[in-house]
Amino acid sequence: MASTELSRLYRDYIDCLNRQAFDALANFVGDDVRHNGRRIGVSGYRAMLEKDFREIPDLAFRIALVVADPPVIACRLSFDCTPVGEFLGLPVNGRKVQFTENVFYTYCEGKIRDVWSVVDKAAIEAQL
Amino acid sequence: MASTELSRLYRDYIDCLNRQAFDALANFVGDDVRHNGRRIGVSGYRAMLEKDFREIPDLAFRIALVVADPPVIACRLSFDCTPVGEFLGLPVNGRKVQFTENVFYTYCEGKIRDVWSVVDKAAIEAQL
Repeated sequence: MASTELSRLYRDYIDCLNRQAFDALANFVGDDVRHNGRRIGVSGYRAMLEKDFREIPDLAFRIALVVADPPVIACRLSFDCTPVGEFLGLPVNGRKVQFTENVFYTYCEGKIRDVWSVVDKAAIEAQL
Repeated sequence: MASTELSRLYRDYIDCLNRQAFDALANFVGDDVRHNGRRIGVSGYRAMLEKDFREIPDLAFRIALVVADPPVIACRLSFDCTPVGEFLGLPVNGRKVQFTENVFYTYCEGKIRDVWSVVDKAAIEAQL
């Protein structure tokens, strides 16, 4: 797969998340997907995203920076949103916060196989 | 610059950090370098690294994953080290901790111009 093709595929995945089109998730995420080394599978991945949208009703994924070199793609995602209660163990409680997530994805046969994510929790703490 | 050339240049930069060869830092880091959007310059960058090595005498940068697409390169760095006192505001106090940093670099004229870094503070908290 070429870099441009992987980037397009990844942008379609992000679009799927933003539309909360979770029935289409299996088009982008492999059956045996792992998140930070833990095998959660596509059903666990969907559950994780549904929980995120419950905790943050105005959640939107925005791509700030993307680097593709198949089969790996890295993205800096930026968020500007309003977690209703606790988020990452922090008492955000309806405040608007800005933060980023730097995340790597390894693809296998056109789907996400591994996600290595770090969310900038310290940035949220600094806003509370 | 080709991807392979940027990757080699980046690995030389990481080697420079691990050797604490700070006099050579200006070969890799631009005069007007910014860290998470804040202009710190090469002297501020050196001061930041010297502080890191004071707080973590056994600090070593290990590349877990790297993706290059010039002028941007992204790296997942892994650490297994022993901060002597507080680190990122956490009372580590000589315990051995493992954590990662997902970081993006934008290059300009062969040197690092922008660093966008997120350190996995939550992973350290979970080990205390």
